[in-house]
Amino acid sequence: SKRYNITLLPGDGIGPEVVSVAKNVLTLAGSQQGIEFEFREMPMGGAALDLVGVPLPDETLSVAKQSDAILLGAIGGYKWDNNEKQLKPETGLLQLRAGLGVFANLRPATVLPQLVDSSTLKKEVAEGVDLMVVRELTGGIYFGQPRGFGKNEKGEEIGFNTEVYATYEIDRIARVAFETARKRRGKLCSVDKANVLEASMLWRKRVTMMASHYPDIELTHMYVDNAAMQLIRDPKQFDTIVTNNIFGDILSDEASMLTGSIGMLPSASLGESGPGLFEPIHGSAPDIAGQDKANPLATVLSVAMLLRYGLQEENAARTIENAVLETLNQGFRTGDIFSTGKKLVGCKEIGEAVMKSV
Amino acid sequence: SKRYNITLLPGDGIGPEVVSVAKNVLTLAGSQQGIEFEFREMPMGGAALDLVGVPLPDETLSVAKQSDAILLGAIGGYKWDNNEKQLKPETGLLQLRAGLGVFANLRPATVLPQLVDSSTLKKEVAEGVDLMVVRELTGGIYFGQPRGFGKNEKGEEIGFNTEVYATYEIDRIARVAFETARKRRGKLCSVDKANVLEASMLWRKRVTMMASHYPDIELTHMYVDNAAMQLIRDPKQFDTIVTNNIFGDILSDEASMLTGSIGMLPSASLGESGPGLFEPIHGSAPDIAGQDKANPLATVLSVAMLLRYGLQEENAARTIENAVLETLNQGFRTGDIFSTGKKLVGCKEIGEAVMKSV
Ligand SMILES: CC(C)[C@H](C(=O)O)[C@@H](O)C(=O)O
Ligand SMILES: CC(C)[C@H](C(=O)O)[C@@H](O)C(=O)O
Repeated sequence: SKRYNITLLPGDGIGPEVVSVAKNVLTLAGSQQGIEFEFREMPMGGAALDLVGVPLPDETLSVAKQSDAILLGAIGGYKWDNNEKQLKPETGLLQLRAGLGVFANLRPATVLPQLVDSSTLKKEVAEGVDLMVVRELTGGIYFGQPRGFGKNEKGEEIGFNTEVYATYEIDRIARVAFETARKRRGKLCSVDKANVLEASMLWRKRVTMMASHYPDIELTHMYVDNAAMQLIRDPKQFDTIVTNNIFGDILSDEASMLTGSIGMLPSASLGESGPGLFEPIHGSAPDIAGQDKANPLATVLSVAMLLRYGLQEENAARTIENAVLETLNQGFRTGDIFSTGKKLVGCKEIGEAVMKSV
Repeated sequence: SKRYNITLLPGDGIGPEVVSVAKNVLTLAGSQQGIEFEFREMPMGGAALDLVGVPLPDETLSVAKQSDAILLGAIGGYKWDNNEKQLKPETGLLQLRAGLGVFANLRPATVLPQLVDSSTLKKEVAEGVDLMVVRELTGGIYFGQPRGFGKNEKGEEIGFNTEVYATYEIDRIARVAFETARKRRGKLCSVDKANVLEASMLWRKRVTMMASHYPDIELTHMYVDNAAMQLIRDPKQFDTIVTNNIFGDILSDEASMLTGSIGMLPSASLGESGPGLFEPIHGSAPDIAGQDKANPLATVLSVAMLLRYGLQEENAARTIENAVLETLNQGFRTGDIFSTGKKLVGCKEIGEAVMKSV
């Protein structure tokens, strides 16, 4: 039987609750396919700050690197919000992404028929939305040098960052995006601000060059401001979107909110080699932490992505996705996706319902 | 009687059509208040490229600077899309903003009761939306140095830009934003990415300091990715939003699309002193140019902003805004905002309807 080592990073807020549910679902779905998992739980984010004073301990990173895949819950909370930069939970997350080299962040935004009413969009606009944002995750303005504080010629204080992309960074994310589009509906929209930014001009040039290797994919380009509009006007026009780190941060969150159910949305972050990082796109929701109210389905769907993209275990991935749909069909809902006529349940109970359908 | 000099920059695509309507409305509304206008039309954008080979001729900028206010139609079109950077219509627009020093861009997004069905949002989410994005317009990554192309240590090609803000730039836009919020519902939300970017950390610090001068204004802070979500989840939570140049580009376009009627949305760009620049937020729409199909109401509402913010002629501004509402009440609609039961008319005819209500 196959064995995989999984690093669990429960993190902060609702992180531990949702990771605990997802771990059980993963174990069960694996066992049905003859797959065994060994789990190692490590501190990260605010939890690590409280324990050892840094948001990403060296040991956490090295254990994660040696494992086959990493499942992260969520990080952050009011408690650490005013920490200086090096001591912010978010900094630990950026260090983890960089340390793992996971440059490709896949963020699906899918409106499930069962949840179409959760969207603030009109039904006819929301139903059938099924898009994937491929976000560059280890470059651009998040990591560009120089950055910091200083003075300008007039002696005034300045804060500055550098948006920078090298050809190899663009090429590798473009390749992932074209491959992703190929497995979907064959349409790729590259989003940039090439009418203003040099970094975007290089982006557009390299993505266009890469297209010659993918004659079966229909490539279009869109400015980021227009993309922000088009996502609201007609989200169904999109299949796969590829964009840089900061535009991807904004647009993937916008796209996720179109579904109205961000408690349902998983993500995968992948590198050239080495383990992938899998996490729900929602935050740590400190206001409902520890109250058994969190929706664990985004994390459950993240382990499905872990199986598919991290371990190439497509069957187990499908089993989990189908179990989540079945659970929704049975009417189970956590508070965030509740509507009248459905069964309002907590984090654990919806997790048990999924287990029964696995 | 009062006299003002107005520079008209019709620009490209539908620009000339919509500016022509708005000019007539301005003239009429002014004459009723004893105001006379002298207009001077100058080339700009693609039109200037075709005429004299640059997107912003020196003479256009100097005439604009000496006038009391500037009305711009729209710029750009397929024809110039592949021009090199210095010969893009967009570059002319950036030069105009910088040349005039109009650092504060006010972009209202209002859902009019008459047009609530145009929104792709559910009626209960869209109705009553009335927000103002105050976007910094002459700084940040749009203008930051250094920028360009080069090589990294490994000899690979790179494209790079600098996001940079100095304290005085943040302070002056914050002041405009607090003053704007004071004239509205007293709520200001500052949007940044201070959990990652140093430029945003300085932004947040200075906006927070400025708040001590505005104890009557309720200031909140939001990360840009969350703002992109919240605009869709519950746009009515926002009154005034202040943000940097690139985030403002994205969020103001997103906010405008919430209304479903970007053919209705005006904007004002203001400096410390000197004339303001007023323009519809929509583009040049080359596909419908010259066909009398364009919606001129965004430009008509831009001359209302010109009167209010550029010339302090509040009465004339109100007259025009009321005439636009009256025209909608009478059922006149251009194609972009048409719905069954209404009167479908062209650019000129809806302009004449507005004139009758002035
Ligand atoms: C927490 C923050 C640093 C992070 C980001 O901006 O990448 C988050 O918003 C995300 O999208 O995963
Ligand atoms: C045309 C372009 C340079 C411009 C911008 O990005 O500022 C436009 O999108 C706008 O928002 O006015």
